[in-house]
Amino acid sequence: MRRISVFGATGSVGESTFDLLMHAGGPASFDTVALTGGRNVQRLAQMAVALKAKLAVTAHDDCYEPLRLALSGTGIHVAAGTSAILDAADAPTDWVMSAIVGAAGLEPGLRALQQGATLALANKESLVTAGQLLMATAAAHGARILPVDSEHSAIFQALVGEDISAVDRIILTASGGALRDWPADRLAIAKVTDALAHPNWSMGARITIDSASMFNKALEVIETREFFDVDPDQIEVIIHPESIIHSMVGYRDGAIMAHLGSPDMRHPIGYALNWPVRAPLPVARIDFAALGRLTFQSPDESRYPALRLAREVMALRGLSGAALNAAKEIALDHFMDGRIGFLDMAAVVDATVSQLSAETRLGTAATAIEDVRAMDHLARIRATEHAIKRQLR
Amino acid sequence: MRRISVFGATGSVGESTFDLLMHAGGPASFDTVALTGGRNVQRLAQMAVALKAKLAVTAHDDCYEPLRLALSGTGIHVAAGTSAILDAADAPTDWVMSAIVGAAGLEPGLRALQQGATLALANKESLVTAGQLLMATAAAHGARILPVDSEHSAIFQALVGEDISAVDRIILTASGGALRDWPADRLAIAKVTDALAHPNWSMGARITIDSASMFNKALEVIETREFFDVDPDQIEVIIHPESIIHSMVGYRDGAIMAHLGSPDMRHPIGYALNWPVRAPLPVARIDFAALGRLTFQSPDESRYPALRLAREVMALRGLSGAALNAAKEIALDHFMDGRIGFLDMAAVVDATVSQLSAETRLGTAATAIEDVRAMDHLARIRATEHAIKRQLR
Repeated sequence: MRRISVFGATGSVGESTFDLLMHAGGPASFDTVALTGGRNVQRLAQMAVALKAKLAVTAHDDCYEPLRLALSGTGIHVAAGTSAILDAADAPTDWVMSAIVGAAGLEPGLRALQQGATLALANKESLVTAGQLLMATAAAHGARILPVDSEHSAIFQALVGEDISAVDRIILTASGGALRDWPADRLAIAKVTDALAHPNWSMGARITIDSASMFNKALEVIETREFFDVDPDQIEVIIHPESIIHSMVGYRDGAIMAHLGSPDMRHPIGYALNWPVRAPLPVARIDFAALGRLTFQSPDESRYPALRLAREVMALRGLSGAALNAAKEIALDHFMDGRIGFLDMAAVVDATVSQLSAETRLGTAATAIEDVRAMDHLARIRATEHAIKRQLR
Repeated sequence: MRRISVFGATGSVGESTFDLLMHAGGPASFDTVALTGGRNVQRLAQMAVALKAKLAVTAHDDCYEPLRLALSGTGIHVAAGTSAILDAADAPTDWVMSAIVGAAGLEPGLRALQQGATLALANKESLVTAGQLLMATAAAHGARILPVDSEHSAIFQALVGEDISAVDRIILTASGGALRDWPADRLAIAKVTDALAHPNWSMGARITIDSASMFNKALEVIETREFFDVDPDQIEVIIHPESIIHSMVGYRDGAIMAHLGSPDMRHPIGYALNWPVRAPLPVARIDFAALGRLTFQSPDESRYPALRLAREVMALRGLSGAALNAAKEIALDHFMDGRIGFLDMAAVVDATVSQLSAETRLGTAATAIEDVRAMDHLARIRATEHAIKRQLR
């Protein structure tokens, strides 16, 4: 029986993963090694019991006792804290879902690769902040990474049986987010509640705002560059409000292979869970006549400076992705707290990356996770400074 | 150097094939064994000279002399007549384009398969009239068939690296043809010139009218059933006026893989020519923002009785495809001659298939090409009778 672990089990991707695991037979089909979560220990405990996990870990030391209580008598081991999460990533397993949100997701994924496990990668930050390190680690240990973003899963699927050298372009689709149809001159006054009204995907608050600012797409562009090792010039973004085409690969013979599906994260999660087999999934079938139309718009880089910043990061590589990601997190915090405006987020990131480019050798690749952590730390300091300056203006 | 032959070189698909062969280096890249054509002997001779073919054959005995004159002194062998075409199909070669239009295209294709050549199949009638015979011949001789319709090439490409048993549905796109937006109650009075005004594809007159009546799509549905060996219930048709999505394959995990491209026959021809490699092709790149939208409509089977007839043929199999195809050809002749109306075509085909179903064992598969010829012949007689009855009403 295949051994699996899920990191970030109680988040949005983790819940969908749990749903698919239970749909596919739960403990009768999978040997669940470890489940990890955050503060929602009741849900983590429920999942651990349902999947008959060997180990349940909460990231927070102060959540240990509630988790222990919730699982007492079940025989499921309980642990808490960052190092316990990393220990869980060392526990032998075959398949790991990396669905922890943020920079904390990087190290468990690296450890899973180091033990040669297949890594289903939903943690966006891993490839953005440490793409070269992650890919090199996978190669060194003969481990495989399967993308779990809908866009990258679509690209991966459009490459099945094909030769990457025949690829002409990769076209990432973007919904355009909640503010897509706002006049450009009103974006500056967009509030958090405005940016949260995403038309298609039901996701966490942070990623929904990143979708409105296109920082989410900027991260995905960088991920695409790192994961598929294509030239940055080969990566395009097109706004596709219906989110039915999840992304496309264009080949040098003019053919474009596209992956279409309902906007449901169980598509890419299920693909990564069952790969290389396509197993039946509990997702909606598309009715094209009912759908009626699929539309496309060119993304205006003046409206979405995040896309321009992604191109700068792809040109620099090295630790610039770590800088962009950290600065974006800080800018997002400040926007969500109402301290800076919607357009200030890109300005803060831009100023941070520019400053770090002058201050550090931003284009030098990380050789170890400590390099990524150091750049993440410095970028957060610089971004905070820039955000405060914007706030005080 | 790969040996190639092109049957039906001077037609629309033949011209595009010639264009791609010359684009890929012409006689420097291919060893051209045979080119065949019809009455356009000057063009056939030009092509034979350009490709340094060993043999040029016209289907018409009375065209022998003009072809011989046009090629005198070139060292290119010249022949004429049906049996010369079949002899050309026996000449050892590696890759054969079967682009002869109509029932005459079946036997050269079968002979190419019998010698183990790869058959690029543009002749629609082959799979419709003798699908089981054709596939069995390919299997018996270890020969491969590559589809050259844009729809079947799209399906073939969407199946690359995938397991056919994971297919849930195949969705053929249809432009809807020239009369797509006509009110249903005016279709009866549609003239040949009306049906010839195809919005996207530049094709021969007969196939353009077949597109307006959806008989072209009906043939393609039957071809899909025979070539990919899927259940008829798995085959869907959706009207997609822009002809950008060339067809789609839906898998049981909900994923739909689609092939998109400009409406240009050099897509499927080039794919079949270069398979399994994707070589650069001189086709237009798609600009999705300029395109703006892709639309879909449900095909109304009351408006397009050809689709219902295709389902009847798929249920019957055997020689019913040969009957439908022959009856359609006769009905089309009568419509193009102004003797019956647009809607009478489907009525003639329906009456012919029904009558032959009562008169013969229509569901029995052909074991030899003679069976197909006999059914073709009888169906033409019956269809002519029904067409005349309609004309005299």
